[in-house]
Amino acid sequence: MTTAAKTKRLERMDDLVSLCARRGFVFPSSEIYGGINGFWDYGPLGAELKQNLKALWWQRVVRERPDVEGIDSAIIAHPRTWEASGHVEHFSDPMVDCRACKKRFRADQLEGVEPCSAREGTSEHDFTDPRNFNLMLQTQIGASEEAASVAYLRAETCQPIFNDFKRVREAARQKIPFGIAQIGKAFRNEINPRNFTFRSREFEQAELEFFCHPSEREKWFEHWQGERLAFHRELGFGDDRLRTRPHAEDELAHYARAAVDVEYLFPFGWQEIEGVHDRGDWDLSRHGEYSGKDLGITDPETKEHYVPMVIETSVGVDRTCLALLVDAYTEEELEGGETRLVMRFPRGLAPIQVAVTPLSKKLAEPAHALEAELRRRFNVFYDDAGNIGRRYRRQDEAGTPFCVTIDFDSAEDGRATVRERDSMAQERLPLEGIAAYLSEQLEAPA
Amino acid sequence: MTTAAKTKRLERMDDLVSLCARRGFVFPSSEIYGGINGFWDYGPLGAELKQNLKALWWQRVVRERPDVEGIDSAIIAHPRTWEASGHVEHFSDPMVDCRACKKRFRADQLEGVEPCSAREGTSEHDFTDPRNFNLMLQTQIGASEEAASVAYLRAETCQPIFNDFKRVREAARQKIPFGIAQIGKAFRNEINPRNFTFRSREFEQAELEFFCHPSEREKWFEHWQGERLAFHRELGFGDDRLRTRPHAEDELAHYARAAVDVEYLFPFGWQEIEGVHDRGDWDLSRHGEYSGKDLGITDPETKEHYVPMVIETSVGVDRTCLALLVDAYTEEELEGGETRLVMRFPRGLAPIQVAVTPLSKKLAEPAHALEAELRRRFNVFYDDAGNIGRRYRRQDEAGTPFCVTIDFDSAEDGRATVRERDSMAQERLPLEGIAAYLSEQLEAPA
Repeated sequence: MTTAAKTKRLERMDDLVSLCARRGFVFPSSEIYGGINGFWDYGPLGAELKQNLKALWWQRVVRERPDVEGIDSAIIAHPRTWEASGHVEHFSDPMVDCRACKKRFRADQLEGVEPCSAREGTSEHDFTDPRNFNLMLQTQIGASEEAASVAYLRAETCQPIFNDFKRVREAARQKIPFGIAQIGKAFRNEINPRNFTFRSREFEQAELEFFCHPSEREKWFEHWQGERLAFHRELGFGDDRLRTRPHAEDELAHYARAAVDVEYLFPFGWQEIEGVHDRGDWDLSRHGEYSGKDLGITDPETKEHYVPMVIETSVGVDRTCLALLVDAYTEEELEGGETRLVMRFPRGLAPIQVAVTPLSKKLAEPAHALEAELRRRFNVFYDDAGNIGRRYRRQDEAGTPFCVTIDFDSAEDGRATVRERDSMAQERLPLEGIAAYLSEQLEAPA
Repeated sequence: MTTAAKTKRLERMDDLVSLCARRGFVFPSSEIYGGINGFWDYGPLGAELKQNLKALWWQRVVRERPDVEGIDSAIIAHPRTWEASGHVEHFSDPMVDCRACKKRFRADQLEGVEPCSAREGTSEHDFTDPRNFNLMLQTQIGASEEAASVAYLRAETCQPIFNDFKRVREAARQKIPFGIAQIGKAFRNEINPRNFTFRSREFEQAELEFFCHPSEREKWFEHWQGERLAFHRELGFGDDRLRTRPHAEDELAHYARAAVDVEYLFPFGWQEIEGVHDRGDWDLSRHGEYSGKDLGITDPETKEHYVPMVIETSVGVDRTCLALLVDAYTEEELEGGETRLVMRFPRGLAPIQVAVTPLSKKLAEPAHALEAELRRRFNVFYDDAGNIGRRYRRQDEAGTPFCVTIDFDSAEDGRATVRERDSMAQERLPLEGIAAYLSEQLEAPA
């Protein structure tokens, strides 16, 4: 059995970017047209990885909890939504334009920007005064030209949750405390998209808004910090790469009373992958005011009427996917000098769960029979091309936890070889027990 | 046992619309602000139903097929995409505006429109000449004011698939014939959104683009018609409510060489829920031309170089969800004169799979223990409020296939009552066998 003599984690993002394109995890949107800055497409492996991550979140946050309801709202909401939320007024960065080269920069991040290329005799920019540049993407909807009205692509998935709070509470017969959650796309016109998929203009959020009585907000703020940290540990992130960081008072957003970031240690530093926020009664109060609807609650026992407080947990799905990719990336030097690249995803999140790899194309019949059986339960890849060692390496790069190899003895002894990704250990198991064995192994923590 | 004496299917859409709002299947987006025409939010029950439908499609079309790869692309693509696709030029309706009342109408649908309300002495409109009105939603992205560039929200999920064709084929090592599939949001500025969620401005598509050699296009066009019809039958749609309708030559879109609609019989008539299209080599040829990239294939054996033909299957996810809701809706007159409303979803697609309904709040302990066990496998709802008959009716309206009732005998005989939604039959089963029983029942066809 080959074993790893030395392992090395990801150091340069470029190595990951190139693997992701080559193997089809994620690559620039509209690549054939030169790409479009801040937009990314997930390929076959990335789409499965992201879907598995979202399914796990939905399972833990929505399906396993009697006190959380899931919804799926439109990306475009009534524009008043974004007035009430404060986004029209506040969701902007102070920007300056250079009158010469027409480039735009954040007024508070001018140190070390690229020099002006359009002025004679100087490389200094000719800046305008700072102006606020709203980050929401706008569009126009409506039938008649005059009535065509500005609408915004949602800048966060939580605002439609507040819009739907009353309807969902009544339809689902929930009582305070309870939460509403959703997963979906959001859009921000980032000035400077960067760090691969980390800061994009189109991205996916998985958000929970948990509504509670004012007297219980601290308790629930604590509760959700614990839950969310446990979730990221379940993703396999070790304590040396995962931390929480409370916001200082001057960092808090306009709506927030307290906030804690969950941060992951990327090659480009500690960065937020989730935020846990005490939003107070800001959102429900504002939507109540702007809509003229009473979004308050009357306590059935005390008859007290109050606006619930909101504890929010907000996952950046693409950021967490990126953390999974970074965390999985491992270069190993094997005994004998050979090297391999292996993506050590937690087994339950791997894009492909099992590869069927017959030793020869002549074994297609029994191999396809096994493939068909496994496909009913797992995401299966069939590969009979090239030598078996190279096929194992391809599956290592895809992060496939198990390969099952049918060989010329299989017909006689009714067994096949099951090869595990991380240890590279091989075990010969009876064909009829392989599906059950894999079920057990794939459900266990990696 | 109560049995149904008379059953009645949905006749008036309004009855469904009202059930969907009351029970939280689907309701207008931004309802508290008066809604926004053509946009809908899925509530707790609707979000699960839609998710189950999408998961089934992904399972059948992507995961079970070695010859199909799934992707998840950005909603905003490089704008050249939509020039190449023909949308910038062709994706428009001829419209006229009334100079007096400022209302806009489709020039080819002027018969019976509402009269003008703004002219004196006449109710006739003062129409402009017809002008083309593009249905794509536009936005602007980019950092500097001058460089801010127009981008479009995708009008269909298939174009990014063509953009990614080469990358995906190479990364996944696929050979012709094979397909690429994705599920996601698309946007069209419909002039007149109508029929509940059927014609919306924001909607979800589940599309497959299958690439084949020109000599095999008819074979694959046939193959996919059969596959897709089988899928809709799996959703429970009977032959009296499901049909295919080939497009006449003058109905074909600019890219299509042949097209067949899969239609469902809604209360508002036969309407398309899926389209199967022979798109020929239109898309890959155009994207090849506009991007300057060679999207052709060289046959490894004959060395022939050719642009693959595309067979497309395009499901309207919201439309199919609406068909599921319409199809499930059943009013029953029971023996004894009582009536019930029951949503007869196929069991595997039901939003809630099992409700735990203890006969009394005093039975909370064993009931919660059962709930916790079932929640590991199923989507569970716990309800101990009100009399048991009313609770069964609430689950009937939600379409929950099974209720499990713990009663005062359960502690002694170790059994609970399992009540089936459609037959209302009740069976007393050993507690430790209930999870396995439900697994079996929920996987079987309804």
